[in-house]
Amino acid sequence: MKKTALIMAGGRGERFWPRSRKDLPKQFLSLTDDGRTMIQLTVDRILPLVDIKDVYVATNRDYKELVREQLKGIPDENILCEPMGRNTAPCIGLGAMHILNKYDDALMMVLPSDSLIKDGDRYRELIKEAFDIASDGENLVTMGIRPSYPETGYGYIKYLQEGSRGRTFRVDKFVEKPSLELAKEYLATGQYLWNAGMFVWKVSTIVKQFENFLPDMLKGLGTIKDAIGTKDEDKVLKEVFPTLESISIDYGIMEKAGSIYTIPGDFGWDDVGSWLAVERIKKADDDNNVIDGNVITIGSKDCIIQAKDKLIAAVGLKDIVVVDTDDATLICDKAATADIKKVLENLRNNNRTEYL
Amino acid sequence: MKKTALIMAGGRGERFWPRSRKDLPKQFLSLTDDGRTMIQLTVDRILPLVDIKDVYVATNRDYKELVREQLKGIPDENILCEPMGRNTAPCIGLGAMHILNKYDDALMMVLPSDSLIKDGDRYRELIKEAFDIASDGENLVTMGIRPSYPETGYGYIKYLQEGSRGRTFRVDKFVEKPSLELAKEYLATGQYLWNAGMFVWKVSTIVKQFENFLPDMLKGLGTIKDAIGTKDEDKVLKEVFPTLESISIDYGIMEKAGSIYTIPGDFGWDDVGSWLAVERIKKADDDNNVIDGNVITIGSKDCIIQAKDKLIAAVGLKDIVVVDTDDATLICDKAATADIKKVLENLRNNNRTEYL
Repeated sequence: MKKTALIMAGGRGERFWPRSRKDLPKQFLSLTDDGRTMIQLTVDRILPLVDIKDVYVATNRDYKELVREQLKGIPDENILCEPMGRNTAPCIGLGAMHILNKYDDALMMVLPSDSLIKDGDRYRELIKEAFDIASDGENLVTMGIRPSYPETGYGYIKYLQEGSRGRTFRVDKFVEKPSLELAKEYLATGQYLWNAGMFVWKVSTIVKQFENFLPDMLKGLGTIKDAIGTKDEDKVLKEVFPTLESISIDYGIMEKAGSIYTIPGDFGWDDVGSWLAVERIKKADDDNNVIDGNVITIGSKDCIIQAKDKLIAAVGLKDIVVVDTDDATLICDKAATADIKKVLENLRNNNRTEYL
Repeated sequence: MKKTALIMAGGRGERFWPRSRKDLPKQFLSLTDDGRTMIQLTVDRILPLVDIKDVYVATNRDYKELVREQLKGIPDENILCEPMGRNTAPCIGLGAMHILNKYDDALMMVLPSDSLIKDGDRYRELIKEAFDIASDGENLVTMGIRPSYPETGYGYIKYLQEGSRGRTFRVDKFVEKPSLELAKEYLATGQYLWNAGMFVWKVSTIVKQFENFLPDMLKGLGTIKDAIGTKDEDKVLKEVFPTLESISIDYGIMEKAGSIYTIPGDFGWDDVGSWLAVERIKKADDDNNVIDGNVITIGSKDCIIQAKDKLIAAVGLKDIVVVDTDDATLICDKAATADIKKVLENLRNNNRTEYL
């Protein structure tokens, strides 16, 4: 069966400000030593499994040009522009409609555009296994991540030991972001995985689940599908898409459906959630500083300094994040990276949109 | 007797990098909320006492244009360009020669171009008293500063209680920069003042002291004086000045001469020795941050942030100094400002003169 991929690239992540901007979200930034952007790495990683002509990218229409520029070879009609963000269920549904418009049925992997995976070979090996499980019957497969610490910012997947198929386990349940206490319990049981938003299924299977749990949404999606390739495509999409319920695939389908499997993914996944992630993905110097660009450090340790052409001289600093851009410089204590969003709030409140 | 002033403005201070550069040393920077540069404040402060036509500025020839631009009204021939820095004795001697070329004798005050004085009225009141003491006989007067803590970076002046004239005391001796232990002792006695490099005397008096203690230098200075106003002036200065001994006025004359008086200056003197001084001379916000330019602070305290048009976002910082310029940004822990010179060493060692 044909293998296809839907890359969800609509995010407007603010945590990489000032590099990420409303016109250039995280998925279009290069954050590794490799030079490729997050979305380029995401696509390159799956190309051995999926033909570039069968890769779909769902994004905001503001980013269509960025997708075109960064992902050469993806057919223009595979760049799906959501008129507005409506969470993951409508996004995945839209992708499914486009695939169904091309193929009677197909395998479909769904993945975020802005996470990193260290071991690509291992990743593809497990994705292949997921394709196998998904092509057999009406299984939904999700790639879980073995938790390394009690993170409270992710949802979790509880799996069952019984009924496992090789490296694949039956899912007991999807659970929402836990409290720290609960996250620690999850970690202790060894039966919970992080939900990283990576799914594999047949299009026909997921459509059946929409029918079961989101029938109204499926009707709307059907209207959109009927217009694909016609002169009304854009108009219908703009009319119908905003009427679809804004709901996540986890909440809308995965928490309710049966026959869900998970594969614990031990391929070095990283969601690159903040500037602190740069330490995990880039090489540090002898003082444990992670540095790019025109930087001189004197007596500085454990810093992340992302400069460009302008000289940044860091003297006597410890645990400081510095990110320079042409019009703005962030200087932030590592312990305060969660407060970067307050800078953006301040800018919004003062209508200083040029910095957003 | 005519009152004249010699402002020493040859310094190449590096401690205000990246704002201060080899082409723009500290004395030509504006570091106060007032907007005027250090040398402008210095001149404006004495103008009620000294005619602008009798103000002399000794500087490096690289800075002649800066002096011209910043100090309107000073006669061009009063801008004395040292071909090279030779410490304060040759500099003061050169100033004395120019004044003697214009007047048979005159009162002369000597002052640095890069310190601040909070109480200008009090300052002028005490300078007037110094002029009085200096015009009477052959007295050398130095303005001392009552020490507020055991600073080890300044020389000290020990004065005698006996033989005081009003607020003026006889100097017992000049002493070099002390150890911390010694500085504490000085402070405890109450008889030591900081030597701030501010002097008042008759030109004839200081020339007599050159005759006593630096006779060779005085010969050279005489040759330079003879050429003033002739077509050879520049040539002779360039030939003779570099042959003068490089020695401070303190070491060359003040430590050896008699009849020295000092006035404890209680006029809010500040040598503005590093970026930390900015805290003392500018207003802080509610979080005790001293901020200029385009800055957003979130949860930051006790910082000094000198921005320009470019946005600086400071998040969760404490005791950090940030100084932005067009081509370089300094980010420095307050405890490490002494290491700024290491940045300059690094730049010199790597021949990156564009940043010096």
